[in-house]
Amino acid sequence: MPDAVIVAVDGMGGDNAPGMIVEGLSLARRRMPDVEFLVFGDESQLRPLIEADTETARACTIRHTADAVSMDDKPTTALRTGKNSSMRLAIDAVDTGEAHAVVSAGNTGALMAMATIVLRTLPGIARPAIASAFPTLRGQTVMLDLGANIECDADSLVQFAVMGEVFARNELGLEQPSIGILNVGVEGLKGNEHVKKAAAILAESPLPIKFHGFVEGDDLSAGTVDVIVTDGFTGNIALKTAEGAVRLFGHYLRESLLSSLRTRLGALIARPALQTMRDRFDPRQYNGAMLVGLNGICIKSHGGTDGVGFANAIVAAVNLVRREFNERIREDLEELIAAEATMEKAAVQ
Amino acid sequence: MPDAVIVAVDGMGGDNAPGMIVEGLSLARRRMPDVEFLVFGDESQLRPLIEADTETARACTIRHTADAVSMDDKPTTALRTGKNSSMRLAIDAVDTGEAHAVVSAGNTGALMAMATIVLRTLPGIARPAIASAFPTLRGQTVMLDLGANIECDADSLVQFAVMGEVFARNELGLEQPSIGILNVGVEGLKGNEHVKKAAAILAESPLPIKFHGFVEGDDLSAGTVDVIVTDGFTGNIALKTAEGAVRLFGHYLRESLLSSLRTRLGALIARPALQTMRDRFDPRQYNGAMLVGLNGICIKSHGGTDGVGFANAIVAAVNLVRREFNERIREDLEELIAAEATMEKAAVQ
Repeated sequence: MPDAVIVAVDGMGGDNAPGMIVEGLSLARRRMPDVEFLVFGDESQLRPLIEADTETARACTIRHTADAVSMDDKPTTALRTGKNSSMRLAIDAVDTGEAHAVVSAGNTGALMAMATIVLRTLPGIARPAIASAFPTLRGQTVMLDLGANIECDADSLVQFAVMGEVFARNELGLEQPSIGILNVGVEGLKGNEHVKKAAAILAESPLPIKFHGFVEGDDLSAGTVDVIVTDGFTGNIALKTAEGAVRLFGHYLRESLLSSLRTRLGALIARPALQTMRDRFDPRQYNGAMLVGLNGICIKSHGGTDGVGFANAIVAAVNLVRREFNERIREDLEELIAAEATMEKAAVQ
Repeated sequence: MPDAVIVAVDGMGGDNAPGMIVEGLSLARRRMPDVEFLVFGDESQLRPLIEADTETARACTIRHTADAVSMDDKPTTALRTGKNSSMRLAIDAVDTGEAHAVVSAGNTGALMAMATIVLRTLPGIARPAIASAFPTLRGQTVMLDLGANIECDADSLVQFAVMGEVFARNELGLEQPSIGILNVGVEGLKGNEHVKKAAAILAESPLPIKFHGFVEGDDLSAGTVDVIVTDGFTGNIALKTAEGAVRLFGHYLRESLLSSLRTRLGALIARPALQTMRDRFDPRQYNGAMLVGLNGICIKSHGGTDGVGFANAIVAAVNLVRREFNERIREDLEELIAAEATMEKAAVQ
């Protein structure tokens, strides 16, 4: 475990960068005084923001670059023309060992493409996936992919299952996490070809994985399984739809509580409970999803978050470094691959 | 508009059929005393339930059949072997004109396949879609497809846009509903090939349709557009994920409000507001989704609903009959097709 964790930060990624980035760094530094930041981006914008706070300035080293990946750059364009972008240089810093992790709130597709090219995938993994843990009725459930891979075949889904399993084991501390594939029904005959084939592979796999079968959309909140596997298109839409539904519920709740003098009084008295709710469903709480499957820790922050949310993404990155997540996922994957090879060999003999 | 609306009911479809079906009929009849039911199913089970209440018995005509489609029958199996099933005979009753609408809480795939074969699709429509309206921050938004079509090409999505437009115009009373395609981002370059192609077709279409472009998952609750178009796989998962998130929010809210004497007191005083919330987010309120695109009104109830929910599905069917929805959608589609033909002709000349 490294003494001082160094995080490479894409200073120009996100809707409100670099302002919200520096705000996030200040907040994160206050929570973790031994963390240091390598901040990549336009020095003329970054320096005044960073130097406004002595403690933040002490934690940050600015690496100037005038280039930045824009939110609507195609991944291929970003790869070709973004070699000096703040995002790319921050990723490079993890590859060279200058930093322990990289955090960006920029263009997801570009981050995914660049991180894959620079850091390369772990043995047995073709493409990384975006994973995050969400609160459920029973605890927490990991879902992946949340948007890195728009079209996924059965093999990708199987790899996500393996990565999700390792993620849940290490991050949620579960001994043998259960895995479900997201589908439109739990019966075997439902769904598209990819989910059916992936389910068949996992059901028959020699991997020491606890495969539950298909789950439906509402199983995410119910916590029916510990890991939910889906393609990035469906995962991204499902997640954002759920966030929207929670926002709608919160809006109606406020409206209902403000509707009469009596309900206003009740709300005033019940305020501690309502505050708990607000905190519990604050999406900034869960900001910072991991690109799992890479040789290096790479965290994607929501592009529209604020300083509080960005600080949480930083904290998520630091925790993964401190828990030596990537060493553990690599070991776990090697074990799984070895187990598979042994079993295949046994089957052949 | 027919004087007495006659609804054909699949008496054996749904998790708790026929008990919850008959309960639903009783409740629906109390709300609409001039509605009559043709109930298809096992007479020995149905008759005692129906005759337990005189008013319900007066509204119902039982048509006995021993066959029923099971929840895990494949659509092809149901089509081949289910010709005398309660579901099929209820659909047939709409085709022969004996009933004005059909309602089933049974196997979605089977209902979709049978209804398409028996009732046939409207001119210009290849496959029906499941559509329903949901509450948003701004009013209501129609979403389709919610699960009838697992794999959808661009042409299907374009047809869903047309049907959704007509549905929103007639059901939500909007003059020119705006249409969005569900995607993982709003930028044109995002998403899979199908959504990109469908968006290109709609953007360039001569149809008098207000195409907004891409929307994301949280735009459903935000009410960014009046109609959200998606494939049945994504639509089904997004909807169920949102329902699950709302349930989780409700659970945490109860838990928070019960956490101390103070918050319990607040909740007691604010009870009218909390009751409003419970009613507003009761999924039974929104039960009854329409299979749009068919020559006939066909309503799919949630399989796991209870009598209250099933009654709402019946009411939805009756309202569509009374508003002569199918005549209007047919006229609208013909106008759209004519407009397209004229414009294409003009473009050629």
